[in-house]
Amino acid sequence: MTPDALNRLVAQLAKLPGIGEKTAQRLAFHLLRAPPELARGLAQSLTEVVDRVRLCSRCFSLTEGEAGAPCGFCTDTRRDDRVLCVVEGIADELALERTREFRGRYHVLHGALSPLEGIGPDQLRIRELLVRLQGQAFEEVIVATNPDVEGEATALYLTRLLKPMGLKVTRLAQGLPMGGDLEYADQATLARALSARRDL
Amino acid sequence: MTPDALNRLVAQLAKLPGIGEKTAQRLAFHLLRAPPELARGLAQSLTEVVDRVRLCSRCFSLTEGEAGAPCGFCTDTRRDDRVLCVVEGIADELALERTREFRGRYHVLHGALSPLEGIGPDQLRIRELLVRLQGQAFEEVIVATNPDVEGEATALYLTRLLKPMGLKVTRLAQGLPMGGDLEYADQATLARALSARRDL
Repeated sequence: MTPDALNRLVAQLAKLPGIGEKTAQRLAFHLLRAPPELARGLAQSLTEVVDRVRLCSRCFSLTEGEAGAPCGFCTDTRRDDRVLCVVEGIADELALERTREFRGRYHVLHGALSPLEGIGPDQLRIRELLVRLQGQAFEEVIVATNPDVEGEATALYLTRLLKPMGLKVTRLAQGLPMGGDLEYADQATLARALSARRDL
Repeated sequence: MTPDALNRLVAQLAKLPGIGEKTAQRLAFHLLRAPPELARGLAQSLTEVVDRVRLCSRCFSLTEGEAGAPCGFCTDTRRDDRVLCVVEGIADELALERTREFRGRYHVLHGALSPLEGIGPDQLRIRELLVRLQGQAFEEVIVATNPDVEGEATALYLTRLLKPMGLKVTRLAQGLPMGGDLEYADQATLARALSARRDL
């Protein structure tokens, strides 16, 4: 009994991750009640994003420059050309960037090794990473993949590839999160924090 | 450092209820990674909904018929013209419809009385309800507003208006939800269930 256009919008919204049928309906009703500019603005942004945003040909970050042109990270002359930080995804890159602690270059793999899901080295931007490392004078590669099974496997794989190239390969420190509580830390984190303890 | 088009999409998504900055970013990345048809389809549905869907001139449900034409609920000749169910919103109407227990007509108020939020009788479709009740031969009005403070106030207000018109005014039963557990029922619900107990 609901209008077809509304049903279609609910179905489209429910395709998004973390949005079920009920949430999709709630969002659709909100969009109907709100001034039409809200829905129109969202529709325009969606179209713009798929039309304009593409991957940087060098580091595979997002960019909206001309096809083939490198992104802002790659063209920024104030960044350090000696350190390359390898991340799984764009969100990881942005999280690192928010710390304002890293001023080197990035390389986005767009995933992590996961044989179970059929993701091998060829599905990631690893070949492009190797070509890039051969062409440029990087001294250190920070492997900033996630501290989970897939991320660790990817880090191990990359270390074996990159060490023989004479590069310093490092990994983000693992241990207790800042502001955390020993009592509530999980076993694996606490064990890692213990084995990787530092001299003071 | 993220493309402007992406920032705009994140900002637009974050305007939706229940979607914060982080979720908006996650959704935007998903839309970028997915085939572009997902974003384009969503954009089209959004435009269609605001272009086509409007309120029925009689019951204020949603419809996409011609301007001025009544909706499917109002034109369905198999529905009972003697019973009118008054609800706060479209979602309530659809919830009732899913029970398949009600075959009368609907009237959507589009809100509930809430002096604190500045919503008085004039902000709801109450005048239209009165005109409709004078013009048609309804025998019973089911006041199906929510069982919360605003819904109860609206029900009381409507009862005072409609009873003098010689109509039977009823309210949805309140008590323990089916499948519920006495032990976990809140005080107010349990008190209501007790005072409204039925003879067996």
